[in-house]
Amino acid sequence: MEKLLCGVDLGGTKLAVGLMRPDGKLIDREVVYDHADKDEHEVVRRIGDTVTTLLSRQAVKVGDLAGIGVGFAGHLRFRDGVTITSSNYKGFKIKNFPLRGSIEKIFPTRVVVDNDANAQGFAEYRYGAGAGHGSMVFVTLSTGIGAGIVLDGRIYRGMTGTAGEVGHMIVNPDSPFVCGCGNHGCWMAHASGLALPQIVRRKREQGVPTSLALSDAEWERIDGKTLGEGLRANDELARAVVGECADYTGIGLYNLFQIFNPNVFVLGGGLMSWGSPFMDRIREKFMALVREMMFDPVQIVASRLEQDAGIIGAAALLLDPG
Amino acid sequence: MEKLLCGVDLGGTKLAVGLMRPDGKLIDREVVYDHADKDEHEVVRRIGDTVTTLLSRQAVKVGDLAGIGVGFAGHLRFRDGVTITSSNYKGFKIKNFPLRGSIEKIFPTRVVVDNDANAQGFAEYRYGAGAGHGSMVFVTLSTGIGAGIVLDGRIYRGMTGTAGEVGHMIVNPDSPFVCGCGNHGCWMAHASGLALPQIVRRKREQGVPTSLALSDAEWERIDGKTLGEGLRANDELARAVVGECADYTGIGLYNLFQIFNPNVFVLGGGLMSWGSPFMDRIREKFMALVREMMFDPVQIVASRLEQDAGIIGAAALLLDPG
Repeated sequence: MEKLLCGVDLGGTKLAVGLMRPDGKLIDREVVYDHADKDEHEVVRRIGDTVTTLLSRQAVKVGDLAGIGVGFAGHLRFRDGVTITSSNYKGFKIKNFPLRGSIEKIFPTRVVVDNDANAQGFAEYRYGAGAGHGSMVFVTLSTGIGAGIVLDGRIYRGMTGTAGEVGHMIVNPDSPFVCGCGNHGCWMAHASGLALPQIVRRKREQGVPTSLALSDAEWERIDGKTLGEGLRANDELARAVVGECADYTGIGLYNLFQIFNPNVFVLGGGLMSWGSPFMDRIREKFMALVREMMFDPVQIVASRLEQDAGIIGAAALLLDPG
Repeated sequence: MEKLLCGVDLGGTKLAVGLMRPDGKLIDREVVYDHADKDEHEVVRRIGDTVTTLLSRQAVKVGDLAGIGVGFAGHLRFRDGVTITSSNYKGFKIKNFPLRGSIEKIFPTRVVVDNDANAQGFAEYRYGAGAGHGSMVFVTLSTGIGAGIVLDGRIYRGMTGTAGEVGHMIVNPDSPFVCGCGNHGCWMAHASGLALPQIVRRKREQGVPTSLALSDAEWERIDGKTLGEGLRANDELARAVVGECADYTGIGLYNLFQIFNPNVFVLGGGLMSWGSPFMDRIREKFMALVREMMFDPVQIVASRLEQDAGIIGAAALLLDPG
């Protein structure tokens, strides 16, 4: 019997565990939401309990697994599976922690731990919108912006394992917008969920009209969902903000195009729910910058595995040739 | 007997051919300067004649070669060795031309044709400042800015073969500076030989004082050499221009750091003759942006093969695992 893959999607809002066949078919999943404010040891215990629950329910033994893949929302040192920092979620703090080693202590099987964008990118390469392409850059447009880079069928990780932090690329050094990292004018400071309040604030200061009726406090924590509602209602402010995020995303992708000359860009993440007005404008900005410099057509497409990409990606890590 | 490698450095100012041993030792070289304004067929004839001259002088037969590697100053489609466009040199125009095929017709041996920055980067990886590093980004700071990206011992070329065009990365979309490509605010528009006249013009408009005594026409075609003289004489304008080029180079390298997480950056090209005031400020800007985000130290070093990098790189292309 072919061995099953277990995927653990360890994020700041949910901890999702799935059992998957090597062809990408998800057999079962289990999701937990109360782990984020716990300490590292407790988080690992939750992972252990959730994996065990799932295995029992499916009558699968640890020995029937090809291993456990973990997609982690943060930086980690790939060579030893030790976390460096976790992503910008409140309460979710797993720093300098031997995540791989801790899970290996619970389950006698192969454990691979990687950044969640790498995992999702690899899943898109194996089963989704990047399938069959020699070089693919997956970009997640979400609370932050990150990438999973798959070159010649392998995840490219760099020296430490932190390659693909494309959201920190400086695209406007004179920008007033500051990123969580402290720098001005990162892509992420201009086009991510975290950036939305400061983009909205500036548009309002510039007098862009809006029909959105929000309190001051609501304006200050405005998110992609609210702007999406505004977009569908053809609100001028929402359109302007989404347009600016699209323009900066067009710049970011153009830069990655010049650097990687990839076959395809696959875009995922929550902001993609803005739909075609967003995607069309990203492509338009990208093509305006590309001018005469594209010699084989590069595709910009939406991810296909959005719903379960986290779990599928984590499980697929076991199939990366490394 | 180990086979010799023949390297052809096909640039817009010189055509240099060399014979090299696989250990990187250059045995002999021949340089021609009158090819640049000739048509493609004449350029190929010059290559043929120069290679033949060199082989005769060293009593080497074509059959004694492992092949001929060609580093081309421009874009080309790697899969079939057809040029796309040549770089920004006056008179040097080799477009849509089967460069590899034309050389294969003259010499019955293996021919590899690649971009000159890829070739130089690979030479630095094999024999120079990048030796022994898992992932290396070579950046040439010259008339333009380009990169040779070597990952896990192989040149990374992308879909068409045009990966590494890092000079076209947009680092300031609101910039008044225009690149040869037509876009505003590329790295190359802020820190390359081609950009120097516009940077100097703005500094002079801003009233930055200078002791350089140049005519209006000389100011309009100021180059790295003249600014280097100013720098050594501690001229304020020269220091300001070199400082600005260094700052934008720091931004460019920082962006590549976040994307590739490489072991080492190797910097080459004519602007490196500005020496330590330039290099120190590049490192300073880079580290100011890196903040707490570097977990294994990345090195920024000068290329070691500067003088013959073009020929050595071209010859070394024959050793790229592909």
